[in-house]
Amino acid sequence: MRPTTQLPRRLPRRVEIVEVGPRDGLQNEPRAISTAEKLELVRLALEAGVGAVQVTAFVHPRWVPQMADAEEVGRGLGELARRPGDEVARDRPAVRCSALVPNLKGYQRAVAAGVKAVDYVLSASDAFNRRNLNQSIAESLRELEQVARAAADDRVALRADISAAFHSPFEGAIAPARLAGVARQAASLGVGEVGLSDTDGFADPLAVGAGVEAVLAGTSLQVEQLALHLHDTCGRAIANVMAGLEVGVRRFDASAGGLGGCPYSPGASGNLATEDLVLLLHDLGIETGIDLDRMLDAAAYALQFSARPYQGHALRVKRPELFRQA
Amino acid sequence: MRPTTQLPRRLPRRVEIVEVGPRDGLQNEPRAISTAEKLELVRLALEAGVGAVQVTAFVHPRWVPQMADAEEVGRGLGELARRPGDEVARDRPAVRCSALVPNLKGYQRAVAAGVKAVDYVLSASDAFNRRNLNQSIAESLRELEQVARAAADDRVALRADISAAFHSPFEGAIAPARLAGVARQAASLGVGEVGLSDTDGFADPLAVGAGVEAVLAGTSLQVEQLALHLHDTCGRAIANVMAGLEVGVRRFDASAGGLGGCPYSPGASGNLATEDLVLLLHDLGIETGIDLDRMLDAAAYALQFSARPYQGHALRVKRPELFRQA
Repeated sequence: MRPTTQLPRRLPRRVEIVEVGPRDGLQNEPRAISTAEKLELVRLALEAGVGAVQVTAFVHPRWVPQMADAEEVGRGLGELARRPGDEVARDRPAVRCSALVPNLKGYQRAVAAGVKAVDYVLSASDAFNRRNLNQSIAESLRELEQVARAAADDRVALRADISAAFHSPFEGAIAPARLAGVARQAASLGVGEVGLSDTDGFADPLAVGAGVEAVLAGTSLQVEQLALHLHDTCGRAIANVMAGLEVGVRRFDASAGGLGGCPYSPGASGNLATEDLVLLLHDLGIETGIDLDRMLDAAAYALQFSARPYQGHALRVKRPELFRQA
Repeated sequence: MRPTTQLPRRLPRRVEIVEVGPRDGLQNEPRAISTAEKLELVRLALEAGVGAVQVTAFVHPRWVPQMADAEEVGRGLGELARRPGDEVARDRPAVRCSALVPNLKGYQRAVAAGVKAVDYVLSASDAFNRRNLNQSIAESLRELEQVARAAADDRVALRADISAAFHSPFEGAIAPARLAGVARQAASLGVGEVGLSDTDGFADPLAVGAGVEAVLAGTSLQVEQLALHLHDTCGRAIANVMAGLEVGVRRFDASAGGLGGCPYSPGASGNLATEDLVLLLHDLGIETGIDLDRMLDAAAYALQFSARPYQGHALRVKRPELFRQA
């Protein structure tokens, strides 16, 4: 008998999952998905017990035609809340639903549509920031300052999403200190939550752990204020979740059915599938508040929108009949 | 600034990958794959720098028709070694190639065919052992004793592969102490190496870490004598590799193109793809001795044998042209 070499891991007891399928999952799908279909996906996710949903993006419809109905989705949330007899109504979905905004104009559109929580996107990679947002990181931070001021006045919850936080398709590995620098500036503007995105899915678990550690060590942000947004391009999404859990992260984005992907990354597969994340967390004994079976219903619904074969895993395992060839 | 909460991880500097595509990858494929095709896959893996290949299984052809040419594959390795001008020849593939044997008869067939390394398979799950091998674990251990004695006489390297080491499709989670008990009995018979298999791919990283720790604490086996064999059914293969690396494991099975899968598990996807594992390890700064680009050639070759779409990741990322629809 020898002593064990590993310290017992202390993982969080509860994790919150942010369902991003209606936005990140659908934005690059070729066929037009109706507002009603998007709202049905939101409803299914909320009914499964998902605590937060990113429902749309207030971006220019020329760049992302799929999100051209952002106002209708925002207004639809209000109607969802008013549906009689619907258990979702009691949870006031408008409060638990956020929208991505790339700039102040997008923010103003979101607020006008009744959205109460916004995700402002910038990047730790200057090249990625320029390609995705057509401005430098410094310019994005100046605009974030305006958005943060408006959000404080409007009592709108604000999260800053740092894309390419660990790896950039244009620059390769992002130094943890550089990520921490961007996060520090965002935090200094009063942002309440920061999302760290492995946008192209090339980060490895050591990079994710080091990046989160650098943000915790180099900013005023507490681990409760962080979220991780992971893609499964290289089959590492679950490994990167583990790396995040080990440093205390307890909020993760995921997409029903694994829909989505980074348009700048060759062969990039989708987001971490929500159902895969729920299955993992439950196996680890971590609470999510989500009913896996109802989440599988949401994933099966989401899958019909995808032009690609299923990229997740749990649906294939738990609902093999969906994948049997005729 | 706060101190970091995570200990620096000490991962192994070098990892050996055992390519199991020619055996585990192909055994359930519906179309008959020729001996020449199997040997070409072995050759491509060896040329990529893979240190060890599991080339076939000496099982009854009624149960696994795809392995009916085990003798021809065994003899073909000798011819591979004699091919003039082939750089593989210098590495004497017969020495680096192993074959699975389910019993003493299979062992005798393997040795008669010139195989110098065998993998004897049993399980930590009694139900799995009965279903897969038609006998109890105790009976498998008694037969292992005979195989171990013969292997010592014949100077044949012997590895014991413990299937369903962490999770069984019939019994669920396997207690680490139970796994350690089977490993301890195998080690007491003089087995030089033990493989721990997440056969159905349902283990989570905590289970893998706990299982390896229990084996190290409860047997005479050193970590150098262990190998992990992981499936990606739930998208956790890479996370489980990380769990293994963290407890010092430095030998992993993988299958070119991610071929293979557990026939008893609904919707089970394939083995961990060798190319995904190589990409991960190189990103982590761990040596493998494998040229990723040539490994991708082997994976692309292997993929033609698969009746399923590609289940790995690195080939899609690095060779997107293979996946473009016409």
